[in-house]
Amino acid sequence: MGHADTLERNETGIATVIASLTQRFGDRLQTGRAIRDQHGHTTTWLETQAPDAVVFPETTEEVAEIVRTCAAHKVPVIAFGVGSSLEGHVNAPAGGICVDFNRMNRILAVHPEDLDVVVQPGVTREDLNVALRDKGLFFPIDPGANASLGGMAATRASGTNAVRYGTMKDNIIALEAVMPDGTIIRTAQRAKKTSAGYDLTRLLVGSEGTLGLITAITLRLQGIPEAISAARCSFPTLDAACQAAMMAIQYGIPVARMELMDAMAVKAVNLYSKLGLPEEPLLLLEFHGSTAGVAEQAESFGMISEEVGGTGFEWTTSTEERNRLWKARHDFYWASLQLRPGASAVATDACVPISRLAECVALAVAKADELGILCPVVGHVGDGNFHMSPLIDKSDPAELEKAEGYVAWLAKLAISMDGTCTGEHGIGQGKRKYMEQELGPAIRYMQAIKAAIDPDNIMNPGKILPPA
Amino acid sequence: MGHADTLERNETGIATVIASLTQRFGDRLQTGRAIRDQHGHTTTWLETQAPDAVVFPETTEEVAEIVRTCAAHKVPVIAFGVGSSLEGHVNAPAGGICVDFNRMNRILAVHPEDLDVVVQPGVTREDLNVALRDKGLFFPIDPGANASLGGMAATRASGTNAVRYGTMKDNIIALEAVMPDGTIIRTAQRAKKTSAGYDLTRLLVGSEGTLGLITAITLRLQGIPEAISAARCSFPTLDAACQAAMMAIQYGIPVARMELMDAMAVKAVNLYSKLGLPEEPLLLLEFHGSTAGVAEQAESFGMISEEVGGTGFEWTTSTEERNRLWKARHDFYWASLQLRPGASAVATDACVPISRLAECVALAVAKADELGILCPVVGHVGDGNFHMSPLIDKSDPAELEKAEGYVAWLAKLAISMDGTCTGEHGIGQGKRKYMEQELGPAIRYMQAIKAAIDPDNIMNPGKILPPA
Repeated sequence: MGHADTLERNETGIATVIASLTQRFGDRLQTGRAIRDQHGHTTTWLETQAPDAVVFPETTEEVAEIVRTCAAHKVPVIAFGVGSSLEGHVNAPAGGICVDFNRMNRILAVHPEDLDVVVQPGVTREDLNVALRDKGLFFPIDPGANASLGGMAATRASGTNAVRYGTMKDNIIALEAVMPDGTIIRTAQRAKKTSAGYDLTRLLVGSEGTLGLITAITLRLQGIPEAISAARCSFPTLDAACQAAMMAIQYGIPVARMELMDAMAVKAVNLYSKLGLPEEPLLLLEFHGSTAGVAEQAESFGMISEEVGGTGFEWTTSTEERNRLWKARHDFYWASLQLRPGASAVATDACVPISRLAECVALAVAKADELGILCPVVGHVGDGNFHMSPLIDKSDPAELEKAEGYVAWLAKLAISMDGTCTGEHGIGQGKRKYMEQELGPAIRYMQAIKAAIDPDNIMNPGKILPPA
Repeated sequence: MGHADTLERNETGIATVIASLTQRFGDRLQTGRAIRDQHGHTTTWLETQAPDAVVFPETTEEVAEIVRTCAAHKVPVIAFGVGSSLEGHVNAPAGGICVDFNRMNRILAVHPEDLDVVVQPGVTREDLNVALRDKGLFFPIDPGANASLGGMAATRASGTNAVRYGTMKDNIIALEAVMPDGTIIRTAQRAKKTSAGYDLTRLLVGSEGTLGLITAITLRLQGIPEAISAARCSFPTLDAACQAAMMAIQYGIPVARMELMDAMAVKAVNLYSKLGLPEEPLLLLEFHGSTAGVAEQAESFGMISEEVGGTGFEWTTSTEERNRLWKARHDFYWASLQLRPGASAVATDACVPISRLAECVALAVAKADELGILCPVVGHVGDGNFHMSPLIDKSDPAELEKAEGYVAWLAKLAISMDGTCTGEHGIGQGKRKYMEQELGPAIRYMQAIKAAIDPDNIMNPGKILPPA
């Protein structure tokens, strides 16, 4: 299975495949330095490992041709959506061919009566939602970035409204995929549920391109709610904010989004966007439903927040006011960078049972303070998932080492609380070292599946699985 | 992989394993004829194929011991819950050891704050809900039978309220399992979501005991809703009833249950329970939410049903009245048998995209009429899943053949409409012959996974996969 650091390049195979694919795809195969570097880009401190060529297929049959060519010469194949992944998923540690799905960006079929849609993997979630709007439908998963739906499927992405609508695993009915031997399969029919055989759909969702290339996705859709309300409330402590979040879930309020920001995160958006919010832990919420329903939900949450000492509770259904309330969250990423101009934010992705959330966040904040790392917090608290964002100067090796140590410490803390090192970003290269602690002997069966389906380890090698 | 009909018995291995397990488990291993027959029971026309012994483990470690012993001698291992499966899942075509999970029926941990519970596989859903009631929580999946949760996980069961709460795949956070080599694994931590590696949880859910034995299940729970309302409405045609169901889903009414009964099914319950319902297609609904919410939902549905010609719409929140409204559905199974005293009902399980449902049901009813098969219909219409129940005299070979032909025809019809031959019952032995038509080349990867994880094919051989 090979470690990223020890994977060997198959120079002859790569040269042969590039020659063959150039002949077949002409200009749609690129080998220029800039484009290759862009396709190996990573937002972590992992080094960029560029593929040897980038190819732009337009059909599933073309993808199958590419894979068959690579399979014949045992050359790595790496899928690429928009490059917004966070854990080095698109790096090519042994080189190989990057398959960029940019040109496979068509919506193949909308079935409003069935609340589903069939898309090519290069469609982005924003493009999909624009296309669906006049049908009164939307696709709810929102990971923040305008990611491609193929990438979101491959990393089992989720985001702010997973608390209501689930993650990618819950919102995919079927996949079409090109397997490592070039066979095109469909993992399920279009019925809403099935008990027919092994769940290959869910096996491919989250497999990060290591078992096959996703070439079409049948997604579940939702009706655009009649009404949307937004609410905001400040809390004296992180613990109180987490308590309020937990109570909202327990009382069965069907919150559509529930985001936590700590005092430092609020301070950042105050500075950046002049919001004048109290610099205390903040919960931002969104409710979807009927006009009466969203009012009831917002008011129920207001009562809960009061019980645990929340202040400044306000809610609204007007679009303009909703945008104002949520501005803090939307501006967070850019605002946080302004806390330390020139610094980069490092992504972390701990997710724990919600009963452990307050404790886990408190320990994470204390540790960052102890290490002197500037580290605002935002979190999808309804799911127990939170992102500490260490702001570091990547050019300073000492600081980099400290931050790496912190990220590793946090991953292990989450695992020790019956949680995971990654709630939604995926394992990629960066988190392989935590797999053993998190999943123990289960990894052996993942390795067996990988070896059975991709015996030559050509599909995105060096990702997810630790060396066998 | 071997076909059920050609799987060979390993007589020496079986004798050795029984001797060894008898020494270890004493009275907790049984080889009497009656108990063995009971553990190979099937509700289909498939013949009973009894295991050679039934063993009753009490701990995961004991299950691992049993599996290791069987693995050492290449003897089949078949999991058994309460025996309510419908497709010959517990049959032992090559003999072997049945592992009855009856004594592993403890609730291991309830986490009210996290809305989850950890149970052993022998806990039944009714027992679980009784235990949870005073905590204000419930587990929503209701397949009708008081099935074991292990069996429900293994068959990816669902039932009447999957339309709101999803199926077993959506409600399991993690599994503990004993793999074919006797290794105990845990497929995930207890966090609500994860992107860490391949989704072994979903791979085992629906694997029907062919990849491993489930020994503990972490289930998602729901808060018992503040209010529950029930509604009932008759329709002039099946098509109108399906239209109303489809519109309810499209308008985003969060129905908790939505069951269809055709005129014959209504006639059956009228005869059996003196309900005096109009003998027309009927929809029964249930709504969960706040007091105001369930009223709003019921009234919204009332307006929809009026639009498509529904009559006799009524709704209520009183428990007694709710039970009266739902009595028709609860009595259906026994009532349907009275349509033809002495006959047996055969299970079918077609599931299609909801836009095809009316057409599929109409064709299925017309075909049954044409063949002279008495065949009432009930359906989980929000999911596009319906059960035609041919009432046949199993002792009449001609009738049996006709019914088998009908069931096969219906499975293929559903598949031809982008649906599945099984929405919730599973493949077992009975539906293996439809796998090729439904899933084509995807089956090859299921076979590869099976061979990689269970190379000696000891886990429930002869199920799900057609011969390689």
